[in-house]
Amino acid sequence: MPEECADAQVEAALETLARRVEDCLFGCLRAPGVPEGLLAAMEYSLRAGGKRLRPALCLISARACSEETRSGEACSDGGCFGEEAERAVLLFACALECIHTYSLIHDDLPAMDNDDFRRGMPSNHKKFGEASAILAGDGLLTDAFALMTRCADAGLPATRVLRAVGATARAAGSAGMVGGQFLDMLYTGDVEVRLEELAAMQAMKTGAMLRLSCEAGALLSGAGPEKTAALASYGEALGAAFQIADDILDVTGDPVLLGKGVGKDAAARKCTYPALLGLEKSRIEAERRAKQAVAALEGFSGENAALLKGLAAYIVSRAR
Amino acid sequence: MPEECADAQVEAALETLARRVEDCLFGCLRAPGVPEGLLAAMEYSLRAGGKRLRPALCLISARACSEETRSGEACSDGGCFGEEAERAVLLFACALECIHTYSLIHDDLPAMDNDDFRRGMPSNHKKFGEASAILAGDGLLTDAFALMTRCADAGLPATRVLRAVGATARAAGSAGMVGGQFLDMLYTGDVEVRLEELAAMQAMKTGAMLRLSCEAGALLSGAGPEKTAALASYGEALGAAFQIADDILDVTGDPVLLGKGVGKDAAARKCTYPALLGLEKSRIEAERRAKQAVAALEGFSGENAALLKGLAAYIVSRAR
Repeated sequence: MPEECADAQVEAALETLARRVEDCLFGCLRAPGVPEGLLAAMEYSLRAGGKRLRPALCLISARACSEETRSGEACSDGGCFGEEAERAVLLFACALECIHTYSLIHDDLPAMDNDDFRRGMPSNHKKFGEASAILAGDGLLTDAFALMTRCADAGLPATRVLRAVGATARAAGSAGMVGGQFLDMLYTGDVEVRLEELAAMQAMKTGAMLRLSCEAGALLSGAGPEKTAALASYGEALGAAFQIADDILDVTGDPVLLGKGVGKDAAARKCTYPALLGLEKSRIEAERRAKQAVAALEGFSGENAALLKGLAAYIVSRAR
Repeated sequence: MPEECADAQVEAALETLARRVEDCLFGCLRAPGVPEGLLAAMEYSLRAGGKRLRPALCLISARACSEETRSGEACSDGGCFGEEAERAVLLFACALECIHTYSLIHDDLPAMDNDDFRRGMPSNHKKFGEASAILAGDGLLTDAFALMTRCADAGLPATRVLRAVGATARAAGSAGMVGGQFLDMLYTGDVEVRLEELAAMQAMKTGAMLRLSCEAGALLSGAGPEKTAALASYGEALGAAFQIADDILDVTGDPVLLGKGVGKDAAARKCTYPALLGLEKSRIEAERRAKQAVAALEGFSGENAALLKGLAAYIVSRAR
């Protein structure tokens, strides 16, 4: 078994997981009683694509912990994670994608980043109007919590699910993602921002939910505090590497390959790593954080841990 | 013990509960790491006052169920509900107020109802700007779920808390409050709306969370399915009576006594009961729904049930 998966393996694994998540995701929200127009706005952004990185991290983390627990044991289904538990974690993973999607819709609003396009398509408010976009975001965020609680009906113990729900709300809330977006707005324009402030803002805005995705997978799999902390550290370092790589790609990336416009950060006068440190030092920092992520999983073996380690390398390789 | 509390008793009880809720509420969100400006925007709207009806319903419902369970038993603390359980339910009750407050902030936004004032003060976006108002709402909604999960740390069983969290997310989400606001926007302006459509919209927009507030109290107190269903029915009928009374007061109310402007529904061409049925038939419908609420609690005795019954009468008496 390889210690760390190669980029091609990582891409293939993410692709497979993304299909699995989407199969579940697109059916999740069709509750009776949702007004048609609202559902259309919510589904539009859910279906707009993306790597489905957060749900993938949640699922792989749950599998990695489960793999560790059972190391040496033969699994009757040939895999490393029981089908029933996997289905329950999948619901939680889909909820994380709903939260991510809501955050994109609200970030694009005219009063926020005022983006007319997202992944090459009109942003939600351009397509459905501002009121619908605000409500589609509110609906996705709220429905995500309903979805999470369904893990318990699907067979996971209520204590585990409740702990994961609490951790998610803290990561997504005013001391996490929402607080990070607030600081990002504050740091945009003619403002001097120190590197520590930028790092803290990014740790909240994107880092908290990437960290949480890994932590939630561990919590839901029933991992103990040590393994859960290791996965959380992995996710935190991965999140930092991911955001710096993203900042770099906004300067150097090919818009066709990326499927989105570049140079937007500089145009909007956003504070970023390349703006503060330059490209070369930013690359070094991204590599350092990716290595930190890999190191956090030192005690883990097995194919899912190898995939997580490979994912950290893959994320910065995009920005090389 | 009276069967149904009089208006003055109801007012005094609501006042006492509101102070208890506010004591807890204003400290709840001061988590480390929340950006100062965001916290200020969230607290501004939380502190703007109001009857704190949803948390009160949650607390009284929990007490009413607990009272039933223990009927005939002497309580050592002289009350009908243990102090430890009451403190845990109080956290949940505060979370319901956070959700209510977020919904007011987002409803007031320029893209939605475009209200510059709320309870005689500038609305959140007038005071802090649109971006901050959107994020303050997002923060309050998300933090509310973190607060709810803290009930388990405060001593309530995880299964009960998780069930109440799921019910809250469904009531507040796209098939509940958010969906109702979407329909309200759709029904505003030059649109013909049937009475059944108006009733269904109001049942989602305000009814779902009032119903949920009672249901959550029952679930958290450990009530069985029959009592929980009775409280939910009470809350549903109360919610309808409340909204019709609110519609009537927007036509007939005294802005000084109400502490808010009147005639706003007609000016905004909102669909309401008085607009569809006229005032007299609207009053009859409000009374009918209030009686339905009282009838739902037929099987309950004790002072908290009497308070809930009195509250139903009190709510429509305002619109007489």
